[in-house]
This record gives sequence, structure tokens and C-alpha cells, in this order.
Amino acid sequence: MAAVEKAQSRRGDAASERRDGPQWNAERHLIQPWPYAGSIGNEARTPIGSGDGIYITDGEGRRLIDGPAGMWCVNVGHRREELARVMYEQAMTLSYNTPWYTMSDPSAELAERLAAHAPGDLDHVFFTTGGSSAVETALRFMQFYNNVRGRPEKKLILSRGGAYHGSTYLSASLNGRPRDRDWMDGADDLVVKLTSPDPFRRPAGMSVEAFCDFLVEEFRETVTRRGADRIGAFVGEPVQASGGVIVPPPGYLPRIREICRENDILYISDEVVTAFGRIGEVFASQDVFGIEPDMITFAKGVTSGYFPLGGVMISSRLTEVLRKSNHAAAMFGHGYTYSSHPIGCAVALKNLDLLEGGILEHARQVGPYFQERLKTLEDLPLVGEVRGAGLMACVECVADRESRNPLALDNDVGKRIDRHCHELGLLVRPLINMCVMSPPLTITREQVDDMVAILREGISRTMDELRAEGVWNG
Amino acid sequence: MAAVEKAQSRRGDAASERRDGPQWNAERHLIQPWPYAGSIGNEARTPIGSGDGIYITDGEGRRLIDGPAGMWCVNVGHRREELARVMYEQAMTLSYNTPWYTMSDPSAELAERLAAHAPGDLDHVFFTTGGSSAVETALRFMQFYNNVRGRPEKKLILSRGGAYHGSTYLSASLNGRPRDRDWMDGADDLVVKLTSPDPFRRPAGMSVEAFCDFLVEEFRETVTRRGADRIGAFVGEPVQASGGVIVPPPGYLPRIREICRENDILYISDEVVTAFGRIGEVFASQDVFGIEPDMITFAKGVTSGYFPLGGVMISSRLTEVLRKSNHAAAMFGHGYTYSSHPIGCAVALKNLDLLEGGILEHARQVGPYFQERLKTLEDLPLVGEVRGAGLMACVECVADRESRNPLALDNDVGKRIDRHCHELGLLVRPLINMCVMSPPLTITREQVDDMVAILREGISRTMDELRAEGVWNG
Repeated sequence: MAAVEKAQSRRGDAASERRDGPQWNAERHLIQPWPYAGSIGNEARTPIGSGDGIYITDGEGRRLIDGPAGMWCVNVGHRREELARVMYEQAMTLSYNTPWYTMSDPSAELAERLAAHAPGDLDHVFFTTGGSSAVETALRFMQFYNNVRGRPEKKLILSRGGAYHGSTYLSASLNGRPRDRDWMDGADDLVVKLTSPDPFRRPAGMSVEAFCDFLVEEFRETVTRRGADRIGAFVGEPVQASGGVIVPPPGYLPRIREICRENDILYISDEVVTAFGRIGEVFASQDVFGIEPDMITFAKGVTSGYFPLGGVMISSRLTEVLRKSNHAAAMFGHGYTYSSHPIGCAVALKNLDLLEGGILEHARQVGPYFQERLKTLEDLPLVGEVRGAGLMACVECVADRESRNPLALDNDVGKRIDRHCHELGLLVRPLINMCVMSPPLTITREQVDDMVAILREGISRTMDELRAEGVWNG
Repeated sequence: MAAVEKAQSRRGDAASERRDGPQWNAERHLIQPWPYAGSIGNEARTPIGSGDGIYITDGEGRRLIDGPAGMWCVNVGHRREELARVMYEQAMTLSYNTPWYTMSDPSAELAERLAAHAPGDLDHVFFTTGGSSAVETALRFMQFYNNVRGRPEKKLILSRGGAYHGSTYLSASLNGRPRDRDWMDGADDLVVKLTSPDPFRRPAGMSVEAFCDFLVEEFRETVTRRGADRIGAFVGEPVQASGGVIVPPPGYLPRIREICRENDILYISDEVVTAFGRIGEVFASQDVFGIEPDMITFAKGVTSGYFPLGGVMISSRLTEVLRKSNHAAAMFGHGYTYSSHPIGCAVALKNLDLLEGGILEHARQVGPYFQERLKTLEDLPLVGEVRGAGLMACVECVADRESRNPLALDNDVGKRIDRHCHELGLLVRPLINMCVMSPPLTITREQVDDMVAILREGISRTMDELRAEGVWNG
């Protein structure tokens, strides 16, 4: 507990920081994401009043390490004056222009800078308002591309268990996490699901290498069975983030990329989480995983969450096919009011300055330490595995380390750890039996120590609780 | 031309305003909405450098009246220091918090204020990043609602010709404008299209009253034929905006509302364009058109385009059905990273202050003058009709006023008018043979006069051109 006390003193808790703002009837009027039918429109979530660096302050004045960096997005940290200022200045210059008929300097400059960072010939960008609309754009572009090419039957989309790609009807159809789709409709006829490349959940007795071969073979067999002439795209996160920070087996991504290339299947790399420094690079597909996709979707870190912006990098091979087609007048009937938003693009430019000005380098330095320190939690018997890449990691809890079976859902292991950690000064992102950590990239080694100390204590208290209730005896 | 010269002098053109910013390779890197296959990734659109009030300034330093207010959205005008300041201040307080586990004051306060403005019991709000994601949210909520109620077969969506509801796979499936869907896929099995309620395009010889009866009868007959037990929702704009500012016949909307109520079909009023003052009220459904929908979607004017924010107002009758269902643990697996964004909600609160502080009242005052002045353009033989409501209007051009037939598409009538008006100091939103006008709500009577004078001259020059080319002899 000494480490925890030190962390608390470093966070500078003080009663004087208690927030005394008005109490809104939020539980009556505001519906927040992913509500349950039984509490919809009648629920309050933890109020957060302010943020600074890696910390946020809750409604009771308690300062918390922002473990998930908001929603994998506050990459340069809270309360960056440079970003606040650029919003003000761009709003006072040009707050909005229609991208249908006009263009702004920040959008053109950002497009140029992103093209310079993107792998290979991914030289074009279409801007959206976030990850879901970025994935929608990539998929609708694939459909349009194949319609113009005279391949209207080539539209199936390959996705995987453990995937998360968005919250619109089509993008959500790709999601492969448990429970996401229990009560939700989807375009199931358009999607084929493959096995999650999760080495921790590979069949008992199978080596990681054999598991990788199995995944690649399943992919190849699916292409053969459904027919390459019917499959338009594969969509995959390099690291499945919301699925539990699932890092695929070495060599898996390049082998899938190769099968796509052989079969004229567009490879869409969903970097909504992994881009903009989360694994130390602006884009991770090539710089970390050695693949050159046909399209890359991004969002979140591109503005560090200060402004809703996303987009798709598109290979100039694809745009050239369209330009040279026999259907010059075919219209890609797609676009958003807030596509290429001048304030969003100005924020992204300044955010990129900050990343390139030292934060990327810092993330590359501190990433291995972050992984190494978190890994020490594996000595706790409730912890099945700690895994991750760069500054994203997952602590997966199990009932039994041999079988790797999780505890029953109603034990709410993730939520218990979150509750204890909240008391100790850390916001966790609980995912059933997992805790996901993806702090602001500016986190120091000392702050990593704080985070890990609190996590250790929070998990220990959860173990004590589970033992006391007789539901676990690990 | 005297009026045009006066308008030009009022706009204060000056060579010194010429923009000398860097020339980006935008045509190479930036893909803007609705591109053609033949020019995708190789196109530049008019650069806009700055905005102030109802004006924007193009790359050559020419000041233009922003005729479409961006994209129907810059309701309180460009360069509002109050909005720029609130972005700065909220970013320095709390720039982002995850809506999954936490809540911010601005989001709760905005929810409460919107609930107070919304009709009847539309007391709940789910925030999104724009119109498309708002429509997706409303539709996915309908699907979830009927799944939880044990009515999984009740999912068809009724939409209409002339409609525009968004640019995601599902929301775009509802679109009913010509050409939007020529090369784009859609969820056609989920959607039933009805006739656009466009009095100008009603069958020859039919009265507007008889046309209204026809539309209502078509709706009722469709419900009978497809079965009320298979139809989940009707989605309609009170005034079809991008379809050409189509104001439905009197009495049409309440009669459709009644049929929906009788058949347990959710009425979703898409107010992405009409809300936040465009027709003088915060929401137009009830205050202008006398209907109380089950859900209202909004975006654009809620932040005057300064920040991507949208949402859905939801009736508490619906949330109560969910809360009292036998499936309390059913999860509405839906939400966006940027749902309830604290900066977006803070901007919307300040924007609402501005609207309530005089701009709504001004819009109600100047709206009739705007319509009356534009209506004078009907003496030009190319103009078939000028129609509108509040501060949105459409000038529809025809080849022949008797038959109301439009000119052939390749005459680009809308684009020609736009080009001439641009030279004279007005940005127009050309829609094939139509020009849509929806200026900032702060426009003065004098500025309305300027706008109409420029439009008159732009249309006159277009008529001269068409006559000279021998393609029109009106």
C-alpha cells in the first residue's frame, strides 16, 4: 500500500477540488452509449468535471489517472493549451465551409501530411466524423469501386471474432465481440466471420505457430469456399482493441495481406485505435506490422479526442482505376456535412505537431516499460494474462489459470476491479473479465508505477472479495 | 445592376483581402464529398479562407454571401467569438470524457434544455456526431425496441422520393433523390419508398388538396399491403431540404402522423435541417407543423456547424416500454466515441443562448421578407417556382413553365447560375436545375435585397447564355 499512498499524494487529492456545480437531471434526459433496457433513460454515470495531463477529476473532487485515455483517444493528454488555442483561432478565421463545393487550407494541408505518413501509395484521404463513419466510408467505397469496375457481385466483407468496427448498421455488422449483437440487427448477408487471432484463446495444446497456420488456412479456405469473385474486402484491426487488446501471432497479418492481394480482395486496416502514436507510430500497419493495406481507417488519436474527426486513407491504385474507368460520370454519392471540417483539421495538424515534436518518441521509450511493469501483475492468481503493444494493454482475469476459463459473468470481475481502482485513483475500462489500459501517451515512468500499484491493489481487493463471497478460491 | 453594385460595395471587396496562403496539393490528396469517378483524387474545389457574419471569402479575396450557410448549418453566422471562446474554455476544463462510463456537465445540461424545447414527452436524448449517425441511432433504436418487445418482424422503414437522410449504408438507403443511389448499394429489403409530397410535381390537372389525399391514401394502402405488423418506422423531413426545399401540402404531416399512431409505426421526424431556427423555432415538428413525433433527429444548426454534433430526441413512452420489459439485461449495443462530447455540448449550449437571445426572433421577423423577395424572381421565364419556409428556399428552373419540364441535365443550369452568382458575390448551392438558399439566420433585410439582386442578375446571365447557345428560347 505504500506505493498506492505515494501515488495518491502525487495526484494531489484535496477536498478543495470538490466540484459544486449544479446537479442536472441527467438520469432523466441523457441516454449514454450501451445502456441496458432496464435502466435506459434512468441512469447516471460517474460525473467528470475536469482533466489535466493524464488525470481527470470526478464529481467528488477525486483525481483519477485516465486509464483508457477517454476512449483510447486522449493521446496527447488533457488540457493541452495548444489545442484549445487552435480551436479558438480557427473558429475566428473560418469555422465551417461546405466540402461539397469548397475547400479549406487546414483540410488540404492535413491531407498532404497524412499522405506523407501513410504507407506506400495511400495518398488520398476522405475525412469523416469518427471511426464508424470512417469504416462506413471504406465499405461504401469498396462497393462503389466494384460497381464501377463491373464487379457488382464482389461485395462480401470478411471480419473476425473479437472485432469492433463501429456503431452504424453496416459497421456494427462486422463486430465480433460477445453480446454486442444479441439484441441488435445487422447486415448479416454481407459479412463472413472468421476466428479471432487470439493466441490466449487458441485451442488447448496447439502451439502459437500452429494456431497462426490454422487462421491463415481458415482464411484461404473461406476465400475458396465463398469465391474470391464474391468477396470485396477484409476489414481488420492490427491489434483488436475493444476485443481485449488481442495481438495476433507473428506473421499472421502479412500472410492475410498476401492472400487478399492474390484474390483482388481489398485489405482495410482499421487503425482507429492503433494510429497516432498508440504503438509509437503515426500509422502502425506498415511501421509496426509490415503490411501495406489498400485503405486505412483512423479517428480518435488524430485529434486526441478534442474534436470528432476520422477518415480513410485510400490507395491511389484504387482511385486510378476509377479515373480510368468507362464511367467517368459515376458519382460516389457519399459524404458528411462535417467532412474536412476546418476546425477539426486544424486541431489534427496541431496534434500532429505535438506527436512529432516529442510525444511519439516518448511513447516509443515508455511503451516497453509500461508493458514490463503491467506484466508483473501476472503473479496474481486471478490474472490469466497481461498482453499488449506500445501503450495499449489488457489484464485478462480467469477463474482458473490452467483451463483459462473466465469467472461467471454475474461476478462482474472487471467492474469490481474498476470500483476498487476508482477509490484508489484510477479509472479502468472494464470489459467483462478484462481491464483495458491505454493511458495518454505522455505518461511518465513514475506514473506507470502509480497505475500498476493501484491496479495490483484493486485486483487484490477483488480477489479478497471473491474469496469472501465463496465464488472463487484461487 | 445598380443593386448588384451596391451589394458589392457593401461587401467591401478589396484586393488587400487577397489570400496568399500556401498552395497545397489538395487535388492530389484530399477527396471531398460526392466526387465523380472520372475526377476522384484529382480535383480542386473553391478554396475558402475566412468567414464573418453571413460572408465567406474565397481564395482570390472575393467576399461572398454564404447562400447555403455552409451546408444548412451556420445558423448564427461565421466568426462568433462567443462560440470560439466556449470551445477554448471547455477544452481547458474538460476536453473529452468517455460517455461509456462517465458523464460531463455540459452534456447533462444540454439534454435537459433540449428536452424542455422538444414536443410532448420527447424527454430523452442520445447524442451523435451528425445527421447520418443520428438517423442510424433512431433506426437502430427502433430495431432494438421491436426486438425487446418481441416484435422482431416489425422492421420495415417507410421513406419517400426526394428524401435525404444521410450517408451511411442504412441511412442512405432511405434517400430518394435522383442519382444518389445510381452507383451506391443500399439495404433495399428494409425500405419502402413512397411518393415525394412535392406539390410542384403533382400530376397535371390535380389540385393540391387532391394530391394530398392521394399521398395519404398511398401511405394507408402501403401499410395495409405490407402489413402494419411488418413496418417499424416512417422517417420524414418536415420540409424535404436537399430534395429541393419541398414543403408538403397543408394537413399532410398530421394525417401521416395519425396513420402511424393507429398502426404502432414509429414516426421519426428528421429535423437535421429544420431545427434550431431554420423555420424560426428550436424544433419545427410541433411548433410549425403541429405534429408530435416519437423521435426527432437533429444536427447542423445545433452547433451552427462549429462542432460535429447531432442527436435523437426519444419519447419517454418508448424508454418506459423498454424499462418495463421482461428483458432488463437486453443491451442497446450502440454508441459513438464522441457521443455527448463535452466541447460539442458546451458549444450547443452557447449556440442555444444566442438563438434564444434574439436570433430566433429575428429569423421569425425576416423569414417572410426573405420568402417574399425571392418570390419576385418568378417573373424570370427560366424560373418555374420559388418556394420555401422560414429561411430556407428553392428557386426551381424549368425549360417550359407550362409543362414544368426541366432543361436537359447536361445544360448544368444550377451550376451556371452558381458560377455567375459567384462572380457577383454570392455562393449558391446548385442542385441540378435548382438553387437552394438557406443563409445564416442573422441575415438583415438589406442583405436579403443584395442576395436577391445578385440571384436575379445571375439567372438573367444564365438565360442569355442558354439562348445564345440555342438550347433554350424561353
